[in-house]
Amino acid sequence: MEQNRKSVEKNALFEKIPMKGVKHIIVVASGKGGVGKSTVAAGLALSLAAKKYKVGLLDADIHGPSIPTLFDLEQVRPTTHEVDGKTLLTPLEKEGLKIMSLGFFFNPEQAVLWRGPMVTNALKQMIRDTEWGDLDYLVIDTPPGTGDVHITLVTQFSIDGVVIVTTPQQMAIADVQKAITMFKEPHINVPVLAIVENMAWFTPSAHPDERYYLYGMGGGQHLKLVNNIPTLVQIPTNELICKSCDAGAPQDMMRDQSVEKALSILVESIEQEIEGKND
Amino acid sequence: MEQNRKSVEKNALFEKIPMKGVKHIIVVASGKGGVGKSTVAAGLALSLAAKKYKVGLLDADIHGPSIPTLFDLEQVRPTTHEVDGKTLLTPLEKEGLKIMSLGFFFNPEQAVLWRGPMVTNALKQMIRDTEWGDLDYLVIDTPPGTGDVHITLVTQFSIDGVVIVTTPQQMAIADVQKAITMFKEPHINVPVLAIVENMAWFTPSAHPDERYYLYGMGGGQHLKLVNNIPTLVQIPTNELICKSCDAGAPQDMMRDQSVEKALSILVESIEQEIEGKND
Repeated sequence: MEQNRKSVEKNALFEKIPMKGVKHIIVVASGKGGVGKSTVAAGLALSLAAKKYKVGLLDADIHGPSIPTLFDLEQVRPTTHEVDGKTLLTPLEKEGLKIMSLGFFFNPEQAVLWRGPMVTNALKQMIRDTEWGDLDYLVIDTPPGTGDVHITLVTQFSIDGVVIVTTPQQMAIADVQKAITMFKEPHINVPVLAIVENMAWFTPSAHPDERYYLYGMGGGQHLKLVNNIPTLVQIPTNELICKSCDAGAPQDMMRDQSVEKALSILVESIEQEIEGKND
Repeated sequence: MEQNRKSVEKNALFEKIPMKGVKHIIVVASGKGGVGKSTVAAGLALSLAAKKYKVGLLDADIHGPSIPTLFDLEQVRPTTHEVDGKTLLTPLEKEGLKIMSLGFFFNPEQAVLWRGPMVTNALKQMIRDTEWGDLDYLVIDTPPGTGDVHITLVTQFSIDGVVIVTTPQQMAIADVQKAITMFKEPHINVPVLAIVENMAWFTPSAHPDERYYLYGMGGGQHLKLVNNIPTLVQIPTNELICKSCDAGAPQDMMRDQSVEKALSILVESIEQEIEGKND
C-alpha cells in the first residue's frame, strides 16, 4: 500500500481512478507492433503467478487483442454479477491468472471500428468495472504506438512502471524510443522498469552452436544505455514460442531454458524496482 | 481515369476528397503490427517505379512512421511552395519516388500524443496538400489495426485496393482477418488485391537446403482461401532485408532473389486487378 500511495502522489498531476485491492499496475508497451508485447505480457504474468503473487492480466489492445488467442479463450464470454448494487465483470481464470480482454466482447473476425473517444471509454469501463479482487500485480498489455489507450492509462490510472518490448533492428528502435520518451515525460513520469529485446537471435535446433541475428543486434542495449533503464533481458526467436502461443498454451514456452531464464530475470528486476526486494 | 471514376462510384456512399492527377491509390495494411508493412509498401513502390510508373509513397503511420528511417530521410524536412495562391507541401524525392510522411514533421524521438481527431485532420491535410503532381500510383503505408487512419482513408478517399501484409502465425492471422473483414464491409468495399506473407521461413546462409518456419506456416494461404483473395506472395526472413532497411537503402533488398520475385509477382497481380493488364 505504501508503494501504491507513492505512485499516486507521483502522478498527482491527473486525478486517478482508484483501483481498490490492486497493489501494483505494470504496463507492457512498445512503440512498435509485432515485437511480442502480448507474449511478454503473458510470460510476465505467468512468471509472477509462479512466484505465488496474485496476478491479473488485462488486454487493452482493442484493434488487435491477442490475449484471447494466447490463452485459448476466443469463444468464451465473461459473465457479470452484482456487487453492492453495481454490475461487475467477472474475469476469466486460466493458469492462475484473472484475465480480461476487450477481445472477449467482439466476434474475433470483426474489426472494431471505434474512433479514439469510444476506445477510451471502453477501456476505462473495463478496468474499473472488472472484479479483480485482491491482486498483487495487474499486468496490462497495450496496443502498438502511443495513442488513446496509452494516454488514458497514464493519465487516469496509477501505473507503477512499464516494461518496454522491442526487437533489435533500427526500424523498431526509432518507434520504441518514442514510447520510452512518452513514459518519461515529466508530467507522465512512469518509470521504465526493463527492456525486453525479443527475437534477439535464432539458433537452429540442428545447429546448436550457431546464432543468426535475423533482425540485427544491439538495439535493446542501445535503448537501455541511452535511457538509463535498469534491466535488459533478451529472448531469442524459436519455433516453440510461436507454437505454444498459437496453441493457446503460453506456459509451454517456459520449457525453453532461455525464455524461462529471461522471464525470471525480468520478474526479479520488477520485484527489486517496485517492492524493493533483493533476492 | 476510367478506373478512377469507377472506383469513386463504387465508394459513393461517402463523399470523397478528389485527388487530381493521382490515378490509383493502393493502401498497404495489416491488422497486426511489425509484420513488415512499411518494408512491403517501400518494396511495392520501388517495384512499380522500376516498371516506369510514376509513384508516390505516403506514410500514414503517425505513431510509428517507418518510411523516414527506411529511406534515410530522418533529418530532412519538406518545404512548401505556393500554387495558385495555395500553400502545398513539396514531397521528398528518393529512388524515383515522391515521399511524404507524418514523421517528417516531428522530432524522431518525440512521441506524438495526439488523440484520434487530430490524427484524422493531420492525415487529410497531408494527403490533400502535398503536391504529388501526376502519379500512376500513390502507395499508402498505414499503422497497425483498423483505427482512425483507416476509417479516414476508406471514407474520405477513393482507394482502388488494399495489399494485406501478414506473418504466418495464428496470433497474427486473427488480427489480420479483422482488417480484411473491415475492407470487405459492404459500405466500405475496398478490394483486397493480394496477401503478402512476410517472414514466411528462414534459410540460414550456411545451410541453403534448410528451411525453418519460425512463425509457423500456412497463415497466408488460409487467409487467401477464406477470403477469396486473388494473389498470395511469400517473402522469407533474412538478414539482408533487415540490413537494407536499417541502412536506409530498401532498394538493396531486391538483390535477394526471393524478395525480388515476390515483389514482381505482387506488382503483376496489381496491374492485372487494377489496370486489367495481362502481361
